[in-house]
This record gives sequence, C-alpha cells and structure tokens, in this order.
Amino acid sequence: MTKVTTGATMSLDGYIADATHGGFEHLFQWYGNGDVETPTANPDMTFRTSAASAEHVRELTERTGALVVGRRLFDMTNGWGGRHPMDVPVVVVTHHVPEGWEREGDSFVFVTDGIEAAIDRAKAIAGDKEVGVNGGTIATQVLEAGLLDEVHVDLVPVLLGDGIPFFAGLKIAPVQLEGPTRVVQGNGVTHLAYRVRKAG
Amino acid sequence: MTKVTTGATMSLDGYIADATHGGFEHLFQWYGNGDVETPTANPDMTFRTSAASAEHVRELTERTGALVVGRRLFDMTNGWGGRHPMDVPVVVVTHHVPEGWEREGDSFVFVTDGIEAAIDRAKAIAGDKEVGVNGGTIATQVLEAGLLDEVHVDLVPVLLGDGIPFFAGLKIAPVQLEGPTRVVQGNGVTHLAYRVRKAG
Repeated sequence: MTKVTTGATMSLDGYIADATHGGFEHLFQWYGNGDVETPTANPDMTFRTSAASAEHVRELTERTGALVVGRRLFDMTNGWGGRHPMDVPVVVVTHHVPEGWEREGDSFVFVTDGIEAAIDRAKAIAGDKEVGVNGGTIATQVLEAGLLDEVHVDLVPVLLGDGIPFFAGLKIAPVQLEGPTRVVQGNGVTHLAYRVRKAG
Repeated sequence: MTKVTTGATMSLDGYIADATHGGFEHLFQWYGNGDVETPTANPDMTFRTSAASAEHVRELTERTGALVVGRRLFDMTNGWGGRHPMDVPVVVVTHHVPEGWEREGDSFVFVTDGIEAAIDRAKAIAGDKEVGVNGGTIATQVLEAGLLDEVHVDLVPVLLGDGIPFFAGLKIAPVQLEGPTRVVQGNGVTHLAYRVRKAG
C-alpha cells in the first residue's frame, strides 16, 4: 500500500510559519547552514546542509513518488517555476484549474473533486513510492480524512512565540501518534518521524 | 553561576495544555506507562516510567535546588499538599501572600516584588544546583527578562490541535536556542534539552 506522509519544518514552539505566514529565515536555516551540497530540480536552488540532513533529504526524495499540495502553496511558489524541486509530479487540490495550466501535465495534475480524489490520484502516480502532503492545511484535511500514515517534523531550535501551527484547527484531536520512529540530528534541526495510530 | 532552566511536557504540535487548561491525560501518559517506579515527596504520587525516563527524572531531581512557580500553578495544585513532589523549596511569584501561609517557610517562599527578585531568591536557595521555573507564563517572563539558560521539552507524540503554547505571547521572539544538547527517548516521550543563545 502506498504510504501517505506529511512533513514540515517547525519551530520548537510548534509553528510552521510566523503569524504573517513568514519567518522562514528562522525556520529554514538548516537548508543552508552546512557544507554538503544537495542539488534540486531547480537549478537556482541547492541545499547546503549537514551531512546528516543531506542524507535525510536524499532518502526522503528517493522514497517520494508524488506530492499533494494545496492551491495556496502552488500559488505562493508560482508552481515552483514549472517543476517541484523534488522532481516528482505534484497533485494540486484546487477548485479551478489555474489559468494557463493544463489539467493534466507531467509536472502538475489539478484535481477539483476533493482531497480523497487527490490522494487516490497521487497514489496511482507514486506506485510503490510514498505520497507526500504539503502544507499544513492540506495535511490537516488528509489527517482528518483518515488517510495520513506518517508525520515528519524537522524541529528547529527557535521560539517564534506566535504563528501558524502545523495542524491548525484539527477537528479530530487528540490524535495519537507512535514514535519517533526515526531521530536524525542535523545542524540546527532534529528530523523526527511519527506514525499515525490507526483507530480500531 | 546557578543555572536557570524551565521544562514542560508538550504535545508534538506545541501545546502544554489543551484549550481548557486540561488535556493532561494525553500529555502526562509517560509518567505512568512504564514499570520503573520513582517515588516522589508526595506519598500518593509515584511515577511509573520507562527506565530511560526514570533516569532522566532522577538526574533532573538531583540537579534541581529550588523552583520558581507562578501563583496560578501554586493554587491549582493546592501548594502540592504542602511540599513539592521534587522535595525542594518553591519560590512562588505572587502579588499577595496567600491566606494561611507564612511568607517564608521551608517548603514555600512567597515573593511579591517581581520575577527578578524571585529568581535571585531561588538562586540563593539553590546554591550550586539549578533553579527550575514552572509553568509557561512564568517561564516566558523569565525568558523575556534574559534570565533563562535552558529550555527542556518532554515531547509527546500526540496532536492536540489547539491549546496553551509553552511560550504564549512571547514578546522577544524570535528566540534562538542551541541544541538539542540532550535527546533521551522514553516510552511515549522524547526528552529534549536546549540552551538559550545569549545576545552579544
């Protein structure tokens, strides 16, 4: 069965962005504070991380066969310039196919009939590999729909004091997780993985 | 120099209590989900944790010479029945000495002239040992006053979706920490320690 996971870089006090949906200069330092280079599908974007984080990113990239993202993230990143840095197809959950884009492309597929259809579509694309879900709002919906298998947190030693929580407004709380099943210490980040405990 | 630390059990999404100031049945499971008994100064309260958590609690208890707590925590616990479970003197930050209590006792000292005076007093009591600060509101004030050296988080694999953040309303965010300087995996909890990065 294709595994569905989500992950985010999170401050120690639980925020994946500050209150203005920014603060990434504090959260994403670990992508640039080391000396091991990891190229991405975007020629302008190369990660420079600790060796431990580089290996962590490499494994994640290898495992991932497709992504499911919300329309906001797609718009915010301008469709990642045409191809996601992880170099995998991205299923975008949206109400309408954005102007200038095909409904079905090699890099992006726009699904307009809801989160479950988007996950199904991404699973079909991913095959034996995993489906990754970003960002927090979509991940929360997937978790609420009972479709999420794992939560990955890149925990950063900074306190933001206020901001956007990873699972804001979660309707089925409390949700019990199991783990961490993995703990990888990078430079200025701790990579943690948890399994969602399934009911029944 | 006497080290000042704070610590809390926190959900993976950053909450030290749910929105009703409860939820402890989810957060505090790790105090009762193992088979290593750790007695406390309260004969009715014995922790039953994993061996790793028991060792973690033992070390913390040995290191701690005094506590600083807010009046709300003191009231909520009814002064821990007269003696804190860690069996150390507790400095209570309050506007007024509560009725029925001495200003200066062996178990409790009530300080009415602010957080810095309370920390000074606790340091004098603790001597070579550490001062621990609880709960979140007081810890936030101590951090804002530049008096906090370490933050300890007992990270629990549960998502509460909403609740009371550890450092709610932090006025000096972002605060950079260093670490984790310690990672101890218990059963249903990960004990993490961070140093507060001092300015200048």
